Amino acid sequence: MPDTDELLSRLRDASNRATFNTWLGLEVAAAAAGEVELRLGWRQEFGQYNGFLHAGIVAALIDTACGYAAASLSGAVLTSHFAIRCLRPAVAETFVVRARVLKPGRLQIFTMAELLGLDAAPEKLFAVGDAILVPTA
Amino acid sequence: MPDTDELLSRLRDASNRATFNTWLGLEVAAAAAGEVELRLGWRQEFGQYNGFLHAGIVAALIDTACGYAAASLSGAVLTSHFAIRCLRPAVAETFVVRARVLKPGRLQIFTMAELLGLDAAPEKLFAVGDAILVPTA
Amino acid sequence: MPDTDELLSRLRDASNRATFNTWLGLEVAAAAAGEVELRLGWRQEFGQYNGFLHAGIVAALIDTACGYAAASLSGAVLTSHFAIRCLRPAVAETFVVRARVLKPGRLQIFTMAELLGLDAAPEKLFAVGDAILVPTA
Amino acid sequence: MPDTDELLSRLRDASNRATFNTWLGLEVAAAAAGEVELRLGWRQEFGQYNGFLHAGIVAALIDTACGYAAASLSGAVLTSHFAIRCLRPAVAETFVVRARVLKPGRLQIFTMAELLGLDAAPEKLFAVGDAILVPTA
Repeated sequence: MPDTDELLSRLRDASNRATFNTWLGLEVAAAAAGEVELRLGWRQEFGQYNGFLHAGIVAALIDTACGYAAASLSGAVLTSHFAIRCLRPAVAETFVVRARVLKPGRLQIFTMAELLGLDAAPEKLFAVGDAILVPTA
Repeated sequence: MPDTDELLSRLRDASNRATFNTWLGLEVAAAAAGEVELRLGWRQEFGQYNGFLHAGIVAALIDTACGYAAASLSGAVLTSHFAIRCLRPAVAETFVVRARVLKPGRLQIFTMAELLGLDAAPEKLFAVGDAILVPTA
Repeated sequence: MPDTDELLSRLRDASNRATFNTWLGLEVAAAAAGEVELRLGWRQEFGQYNGFLHAGIVAALIDTACGYAAASLSGAVLTSHFAIRCLRPAVAETFVVRARVLKPGRLQIFTMAELLGLDAAPEKLFAVGDAILVPTA
Repeated sequence: MPDTDELLSRLRDASNRATFNTWLGLEVAAAAAGEVELRLGWRQEFGQYNGFLHAGIVAALIDTACGYAAASLSGAVLTSHFAIRCLRPAVAETFVVRARVLKPGRLQIFTMAELLGLDAAPEKLFAVGDAILVPTA
């Protein structure tokens, strides 16, 4: 079971090496074994054609959170499959995505995540998703 | 059946209104009724932690292509569900994503897409995906 | 909000009209607005090649439970999309599948479900899944 | 590359060991390296509440076909993830499901499949799906 501070620091280092995450300004807000929370402040460049958060960024948030939840229990991982269900338009000052490991495995790690607004009611999910990650090392 | 030039021009206008697509530099390369091809030149900011195309951008390309394929047969659409299968690391100078409508419907439009490198062998797919789009107007 | 007894009785009637559910011997064990629990006793005919519960029956359980959770809030529905993640081999005397509605909608109802053994530890999920249902009436 | 007759015979043996496939009466109609075709004759017991092919059987057909396509290139496999898109009600005297391997791998085999009626127009797909299989031996 990794120390929380050490884990946070390892995930933040990994995130800083991903140029797209750096551009996004993605923040690793919390982490524990098998669980992470990421935050992202809204910026004008994140929109789809009518100003909601672009589904590609929804996917980036969910995929990244699932990957970090998996990586908290293993070493480096690669995404194999992920799926996103867009429940309602994603509009917020700050987005929060929480992911957790559903089933760790030596060959495949099953994870799931949800995306909501920082100040939103917990049941007002913008999107939910799941990912299968494959440990690479 | 829309005129091809008119359709291309309509999809390019829609793409230009999506601030994230503009930031990406996404190009609508070809379009016909129920089919589109998008292209994206690699940039340093698009990387995940070891320099492959970030899964979020893979998702943005597939979701956007599926959305435009659907929009070529209807008016504006919103993504309801999409799924991505990452077959191999995505590394190329220029990425090509091709989407087509599998089943148009009044309430749901089913689409699928594939992502590869511009000069890659056609069987060397980086990723495949599918999306369900809901017409909004 | 439907009366629970009335709802149970409506779902059981619907289940009895589905010849495949009757063959399975599927039991609607509990239901409330947006939530159902189904049970299925193991029978020899339900196996895949090494005797675990066949993935098709895993899918039938998850799809049916998601459909009934959706139907508890609307009238008749049809499945549009569903996905199953098989976490571990499904072996039990009695299988329990619980589904709930994540987001009801006029055009699409988003649901999710989990499958486990009746006497299994709650974290020992056999499979999880999700479905999108479309109201037909 | 396996001999076609030997492969057909190996897949039929495997299918006969799956009690659910035997109950269904599933026929392995054709097989080659990375590709299979299965057939299923309609029976009264296969219905959902209004008499279409039950989504669980749609899933069983797609999952089984994907599994055999994978197994044609490897030894035994287990399903890890699968997803089904139901495009239109499935009604036919005889159902045909064709699956192929999209990307074989040592740890994961990516496959896809489509379901239609034996005498249906090729574009009148009932359902499409995809599966990830994990070699177990």
